Amino acid sequence: MKIIIINGPNLNLLGKREVDIYGNQSFEDYLQNLRAQFPEINIDYMQSNSEGALIDQIQTSGFSLDGIIINPGGYSHTSIALADAIAAIPAPVIEVHISNIHGREDYRKHTFTGGKAKGIISGLGLQGYALAVRYLKDIG
Amino acid sequence: MKIIIINGPNLNLLGKREVDIYGNQSFEDYLQNLRAQFPEINIDYMQSNSEGALIDQIQTSGFSLDGIIINPGGYSHTSIALADAIAAIPAPVIEVHISNIHGREDYRKHTFTGGKAKGIISGLGLQGYALAVRYLKDIG
Amino acid sequence: MKIIIINGPNLNLLGKREVDIYGNQSFEDYLQNLRAQFPEINIDYMQSNSEGALIDQIQTSGFSLDGIIINPGGYSHTSIALADAIAAIPAPVIEVHISNIHGREDYRKHTFTGGKAKGIISGLGLQGYALAVRYLKDIG
Amino acid sequence: MKIIIINGPNLNLLGKREVDIYGNQSFEDYLQNLRAQFPEINIDYMQSNSEGALIDQIQTSGFSLDGIIINPGGYSHTSIALADAIAAIPAPVIEVHISNIHGREDYRKHTFTGGKAKGIISGLGLQGYALAVRYLKDIG
Amino acid sequence: MKIIIINGPNLNLLGKREVDIYGNQSFEDYLQNLRAQFPEINIDYMQSNSEGALIDQIQTSGFSLDGIIINPGGYSHTSIALADAIAAIPAPVIEVHISNIHGREDYRKHTFTGGKAKGIISGLGLQGYALAVRYLKDIG
Amino acid sequence: MKIIIINGPNLNLLGKREVDIYGNQSFEDYLQNLRAQFPEINIDYMQSNSEGALIDQIQTSGFSLDGIIINPGGYSHTSIALADAIAAIPAPVIEVHISNIHGREDYRKHTFTGGKAKGIISGLGLQGYALAVRYLKDIG
Amino acid sequence: MKIIIINGPNLNLLGKREVDIYGNQSFEDYLQNLRAQFPEINIDYMQSNSEGALIDQIQTSGFSLDGIIINPGGYSHTSIALADAIAAIPAPVIEVHISNIHGREDYRKHTFTGGKAKGIISGLGLQGYALAVRYLKDIG
Amino acid sequence: MKIIIINGPNLNLLGKREVDIYGNQSFEDYLQNLRAQFPEINIDYMQSNSEGALIDQIQTSGFSLDGIIINPGGYSHTSIALADAIAAIPAPVIEVHISNIHGREDYRKHTFTGGKAKGIISGLGLQGYALAVRYLKDIG
Amino acid sequence: MKIIIINGPNLNLLGKREVDIYGNQSFEDYLQNLRAQFPEINIDYMQSNSEGALIDQIQTSGFSLDGIIINPGGYSHTSIALADAIAAIPAPVIEVHISNIHGREDYRKHTFTGGKAKGIISGLGLQGYALAVRYLKDIG
Amino acid sequence: MKIIIINGPNLNLLGKREVDIYGNQSFEDYLQNLRAQFPEINIDYMQSNSEGALIDQIQTSGFSLDGIIINPGGYSHTSIALADAIAAIPAPVIEVHISNIHGREDYRKHTFTGGKAKGIISGLGLQGYALAVRYLKDIG
Amino acid sequence: MKIIIINGPNLNLLGKREVDIYGNQSFEDYLQNLRAQFPEINIDYMQSNSEGALIDQIQTSGFSLDGIIINPGGYSHTSIALADAIAAIPAPVIEVHISNIHGREDYRKHTFTGGKAKGIISGLGLQGYALAVRYLKDIG
Amino acid sequence: MKIIIINGPNLNLLGKREVDIYGNQSFEDYLQNLRAQFPEINIDYMQSNSEGALIDQIQTSGFSLDGIIINPGGYSHTSIALADAIAAIPAPVIEVHISNIHGREDYRKHTFTGGKAKGIISGLGLQGYALAVRYLKDIG
Repeated sequence: MKIIIINGPNLNLLGKREVDIYGNQSFEDYLQNLRAQFPEINIDYMQSNSEGALIDQIQTSGFSLDGIIINPGGYSHTSIALADAIAAIPAPVIEVHISNIHGREDYRKHTFTGGKAKGIISGLGLQGYALAVRYLKDIG
Repeated sequence: MKIIIINGPNLNLLGKREVDIYGNQSFEDYLQNLRAQFPEINIDYMQSNSEGALIDQIQTSGFSLDGIIINPGGYSHTSIALADAIAAIPAPVIEVHISNIHGREDYRKHTFTGGKAKGIISGLGLQGYALAVRYLKDIG
Repeated sequence: MKIIIINGPNLNLLGKREVDIYGNQSFEDYLQNLRAQFPEINIDYMQSNSEGALIDQIQTSGFSLDGIIINPGGYSHTSIALADAIAAIPAPVIEVHISNIHGREDYRKHTFTGGKAKGIISGLGLQGYALAVRYLKDIG
Repeated sequence: MKIIIINGPNLNLLGKREVDIYGNQSFEDYLQNLRAQFPEINIDYMQSNSEGALIDQIQTSGFSLDGIIINPGGYSHTSIALADAIAAIPAPVIEVHISNIHGREDYRKHTFTGGKAKGIISGLGLQGYALAVRYLKDIG
Repeated sequence: MKIIIINGPNLNLLGKREVDIYGNQSFEDYLQNLRAQFPEINIDYMQSNSEGALIDQIQTSGFSLDGIIINPGGYSHTSIALADAIAAIPAPVIEVHISNIHGREDYRKHTFTGGKAKGIISGLGLQGYALAVRYLKDIG
Repeated sequence: MKIIIINGPNLNLLGKREVDIYGNQSFEDYLQNLRAQFPEINIDYMQSNSEGALIDQIQTSGFSLDGIIINPGGYSHTSIALADAIAAIPAPVIEVHISNIHGREDYRKHTFTGGKAKGIISGLGLQGYALAVRYLKDIG
Repeated sequence: MKIIIINGPNLNLLGKREVDIYGNQSFEDYLQNLRAQFPEINIDYMQSNSEGALIDQIQTSGFSLDGIIINPGGYSHTSIALADAIAAIPAPVIEVHISNIHGREDYRKHTFTGGKAKGIISGLGLQGYALAVRYLKDIG
Repeated sequence: MKIIIINGPNLNLLGKREVDIYGNQSFEDYLQNLRAQFPEINIDYMQSNSEGALIDQIQTSGFSLDGIIINPGGYSHTSIALADAIAAIPAPVIEVHISNIHGREDYRKHTFTGGKAKGIISGLGLQGYALAVRYLKDIG
Repeated sequence: MKIIIINGPNLNLLGKREVDIYGNQSFEDYLQNLRAQFPEINIDYMQSNSEGALIDQIQTSGFSLDGIIINPGGYSHTSIALADAIAAIPAPVIEVHISNIHGREDYRKHTFTGGKAKGIISGLGLQGYALAVRYLKDIG
Repeated sequence: MKIIIINGPNLNLLGKREVDIYGNQSFEDYLQNLRAQFPEINIDYMQSNSEGALIDQIQTSGFSLDGIIINPGGYSHTSIALADAIAAIPAPVIEVHISNIHGREDYRKHTFTGGKAKGIISGLGLQGYALAVRYLKDIG
Repeated sequence: MKIIIINGPNLNLLGKREVDIYGNQSFEDYLQNLRAQFPEINIDYMQSNSEGALIDQIQTSGFSLDGIIINPGGYSHTSIALADAIAAIPAPVIEVHISNIHGREDYRKHTFTGGKAKGIISGLGLQGYALAVRYLKDIG
Repeated sequence: MKIIIINGPNLNLLGKREVDIYGNQSFEDYLQNLRAQFPEINIDYMQSNSEGALIDQIQTSGFSLDGIIINPGGYSHTSIALADAIAAIPAPVIEVHISNIHGREDYRKHTFTGGKAKGIISGLGLQGYALAVRYLKDIG
């Protein structure tokens, strides 16, 4: 089974950005643990601050992999183009948010991308990624 | 470790209500599987169609148990009282929705209760409950 | 043929509450007349101020009776949970309002429950119930 | 007793327009049945696609007949002028909609004309007209 | 000098419609007085309940007369088409409302047509027409 | 007969402010003409940029004079306090706007004060004041 | 004189819930003080998390007691049914909020129930109840 | 192949109305050119300022012709009735606007009728009609 | 203990303005009673129709007195500047409204100033001032 | 004559994405036909999922080519930056949408970019591109 | 060169009001430094809590001085009258806010006055005034 | 001291785009002057039309430089992702707009990015950059 985790804007700063909200572990460190937890799954990884690059990746992975875990960051709330990409591909997509988007500013409560994904995990920290992997594994 | 699953209005109809959206398994059947998956955890269960009874249960369980998994159904989108109850207790609360609330009618996209919960899992079917249990177990 | 009339909050005060809007006949008195008009139909009756009890009754009656006439009162405008219950059952549901909800305050103009019912009769006084019974009889 | 049924725009297409929503019976056919059901009532009929012609008719009938049954179609949601005409006349007006306006697009949920009518019957198909006649007969 | 007064929907009912708001004098009676007040001005008159007929009249009069006084009634608040007609002609247009549109229901506070007219006189009863004539005479 | 004209903020700049909208005549010059037109009426005058001073004046004049003509300028659209003052006095109040408030920015289309006045004359230039005087004279 | 204090959802947690907002005294403790302050008044007390039970109590007390003091908690902002109950009874109703509803989240600024009550005391802590009792005593 | 061009309110003024927006050619002149461009197509033409007459024409042409090109003018933005007529007929309908509705006032950006048409051509001047004819010819 | 009562616009008309809403007692008369009720408290008084004068007074009193009771009248709903003044001072501020602001026009339901005050008493007539004094005395 | 077609996000998936909405022909195939139809026009082509790349291309082509045909996909509804680019260049821009943006979700009905383009063709399938080319050719 | 700094409501409290937002230096102290920085410029100063006095000052200074620096405080967000005054004068006006109005409450994000000023400097503390002086000096 | 100026979409067109709004000087020319004005400061420069590239640059510069001056152009009003980047870095960020965003279209009045910046300078032309540099120098 092969999946990819796609992280959107500013998630490369994880561990040094607003640590009270997002925690102080870098995503790379976390990814090592995650792969260790799921040795039977090939977990690809990509991060970009560019909306276009994220769409490119969804298009590439969406027709060949068994699942996509995406955290579109700030693009979740504004990008119809990204949502359209998610709707266009056959692979199941799980949207993950580290913080709880319904407990923050009003403009973070709506997610265009999440509405086109299969489901959303929000507010459970980095562990949300692990739960998403497990879900994909179970339905795989 | 002891937790409780609290299901809100109409979830007692699971398996015979709008099966294209909610699936055709009753929650009681699912609960058996869930308990089998997590034999080390004492998983209590309660369902009610009454907002007041749900608040009563949150208040009772919220000061004594190790976690609450709640699916407030239609009350998610309208009940400030239920959200206040969640905010009032020390136990971690995970909100689960079987269907993806961001992919349905506009009035289901906002969740008062979810904003006060620790996190939300939405759209991953009954498996969302299992992921919530796992999360509580991991942080327990 | 067996149907039920379900009255929501404050309809037990009929006859002594805001008589210029709702008239001065109690619902119990009216019900006698109604049953006399339709002796061939078994007309059950239930009133509750509790949203949960109303949902319970819809769930119980909705899978066994030939029709439901409901006046959800103030819950019409706010209860997604009640609307979900109406959407979940096979029995035809007719929503009745004694006063004309489109001729009153703005917040009474929208009805969540009515949108899930088969139809709505609003503003025709207690006679609206009789018209609803007749409709159910005709399609019965 | 003499009443009139006034049908607004596109109701002349009944039976050949969007039959899944409006059914496949023409209004003329239905009217024959209706008159047969109420032989003691003189039921006039008029249909127009013109807002002005509908207002003209309301003004003419509203001061001389015993009741008006109107289905303003699409004008229900937009015409203050038509609503003003209804408010200006002494005859009781019942608004009928074949489909359930609260169960369709958002822009059909508000009715200017219905707010000025005595009451509204919506979603009960062509039978809504018969119920309206019966109501007028009972209060006549 | 030649002008026209164009009255919109329901103004033909003046004197017998909602007399507490609009007074009990018919417009025809008032028009006689008005013509007597301004014998030097040729005051044409037209009333219609039809939006299209009102637009037709504006187009006809708007290129040949010295001024138009219009009371578009309920169309004021909803008709972009009527407003476009007013914007399309060279003759000065004064919009008159018998009642004060800013002191009534919210939906009467905005006037599409008034925004394209030269000016508005609202709330001064039938006398508003006389003031409008005087204005046209003065700028004539 | 004694009346007062009350001009609000920035109307003291008339004649040197945005002349394309408001014209190039000062109000003092105009007032001379106006008094000449109506020698039989005692026309008092007051201008202030202060909301409080305008309320003071309305309260003083409103219980003793035969009418008030007010142009509240920018306060029309924002001042509930000024509107309350107008509603509190027995003297008839006519609101005048030199430009057409419905033909300018959206925030000028609503008038709190106008809703409490007897009527509004808008867009007819300085002549609006003369028409208001005439109205007060006629009903005086 | 006999009155009742009706406390809505989560007020049973007073003293152990969000103490920075609501203080750390339980309502039962406070009630003892209150009764001691007003020995001449029979002060009944009831708390429920159930909207229906609150409506039941209002209906029961509203026709027999001399006054009702209600803190509807989160239901204040969402319950038309509760507001209807308050409007339906003859007893004077005072709504009390411990915290200042206008100084918190936007969704707490509107109160359906308060609009139907005689008056509102908000933000004065538990002392608000004493002030409400005093008011009822004075008008009693 | 037989089609019809239906022009709505104020389009009869083309060539003498707001020429900076709509150009200075009359539609009749343009129509000659258009017919010359497409000699093989029978292009009927109708213009009306009346919403009702436009609906009548759509109903008549919509069941017999091969296509309709409509420019509903100001009714585009307000008429649900016209939109319903377009939705009710089998003939393909192309909506044309001479000016770009998305580049003008906000109230012109939404088109009820356009949402029910097959497609929209907006802002390409009179040439938009020719493009619409060509489209109908190509799919004919 | 020294406090001040600050009354905003139009409250000087109390007793002769809209007596059905505000009663027929002047504030000066009431103030005598109030001072008699609380002889141990030095109650200063100031009324102004000017927003600026009210801010001046809040600034002056807010750093020296033991409490402020303010009824900002119409400025409550519109004045951010007044709300900023209340937020800027150390003295506790109680906002009083004679009528129930939640039971009147929509534009009176929101209070900028009230959100910055310690608390609000609304709808309890002039007695609201006495309750506010008592509150300040108790916390004094 | 030299023009360019610029396709935005997800249009590279044409033919394999939501074929019920967008059809099953790839854009490359269609482009061959298009060039064959217009051999006299040099039709450049570019597609990108990146908002920035689209802006770059508009800037490059907009000062040198004779016209731009753009389908900004999901960016149409959200990108002020792209709209600014269109407004900044001298070349005429035609916006094309394959599906009818007014007949889909509400968030697709508004187009920032379209408001700055010369015109819009929407809902006419791939043929919309051909019509746009023809238009550019005619005005070229 | 002669300019004036006009400070609006509550800015006289600078240094003792919400020091975490506005800092603890009084404006008078700062003004001394400012004048020292720009000895070649005559910097007048005026502060008022009264909207009317601010308008008076703008009108007086706006026709004679070389520039105005204004911080309208809370009036920025609500005062159309003040904005009109700024639009009415020839002198360039720079609006300064000490805190960042876009980083605070939603109701502070819109500025009526700023929209009529030449420009805005917001969030740069007292230094914003110095930058504004420098700007005026440079364009002077 | 080392800072960077980051210009967003379309600012590379400065001098040849909408010169009435943005002036006719290219940014490169201006930059030379600016560096000449502040020889002691190392002023880096970067422009991109890509949201992602702008975020990349903010992330790179935000942890190493002494300040960032950013003009996010059209992204200011729509990009939560860019705003998140600004919030994530320690360097002070000043947002500059050449034109006055509060004096243009409504959709330009809100700035997501500006709300996360330290401050905003808007409407002062290219000189806004110089003022921003000076500010950074002063606090540096």
